[in-house]
Amino acid sequence: MSYDPANIFAKILRGEIPAHKVFEDDTALVMMDIFPQSRGHCLVIPKAASRNLLDADPAALSAIMPLVQRVAKAARAATGADGVRVVQFNEAAAGQTVFHLHFHIIPVYEGVALGAHAGGQADNAELAGLAGEISAQL
Amino acid sequence: MSYDPANIFAKILRGEIPAHKVFEDDTALVMMDIFPQSRGHCLVIPKAASRNLLDADPAALSAIMPLVQRVAKAARAATGADGVRVVQFNEAAAGQTVFHLHFHIIPVYEGVALGAHAGGQADNAELAGLAGEISAQL
Repeated sequence: MSYDPANIFAKILRGEIPAHKVFEDDTALVMMDIFPQSRGHCLVIPKAASRNLLDADPAALSAIMPLVQRVAKAARAATGADGVRVVQFNEAAAGQTVFHLHFHIIPVYEGVALGAHAGGQADNAELAGLAGEISAQL
Repeated sequence: MSYDPANIFAKILRGEIPAHKVFEDDTALVMMDIFPQSRGHCLVIPKAASRNLLDADPAALSAIMPLVQRVAKAARAATGADGVRVVQFNEAAAGQTVFHLHFHIIPVYEGVALGAHAGGQADNAELAGLAGEISAQL
């Protein structure tokens, strides 16, 4: 399977499409998922081009994990969640829908079921607010 | 939240409880999940003591990710799965049941729903066979 630079995350990384950004540096972008499974669901996206974990440069995986941890802690702190799931899908059968490597950071709240991804697009103002709150905790 | 060295993975790491081992070195253990969500479901466990991702040493997270990738690729190759999920739970609300950091590597098969974790313990002979097959692909 090859990397298609027309995927939507590549377009966001190139600035062709807007996103609710939480963090950005030379190596990675963190943004809110616009189809969140819970309040505060965000994505950590390495800028290096790979389809998913299976074809990624191992060094890029090592480099991104401290940021994955920082975002998990920040999302929990910002939302007051009781736990956090870190989820990463490889290929369509596993649930991958955008074919650029990304890590889902999903805050989980006691007694609140995670929404299906098809739950619909979140309110832009709410996502912008959450992006700012998580960013402030990084 | 603190680390409890009486957790079952710590006991396995100390050799007090057996496991279907796929791989082991000074820094990590890979073993089959005895309550698998799919055929080939295995766990990557850093030996360094941490409750989960939230309190882990960032350097230990960087160190483990190339192995997570290798195991994901090996599990897919050994099982012929169509995709792979990498999942990591933090705290009980998020689904964590053993409080020593671990990464789930879950092969996914087109048209086959993932089993609930409560689906029951797998057959030992089948797990031993899968451990050998995944190990051979590492």
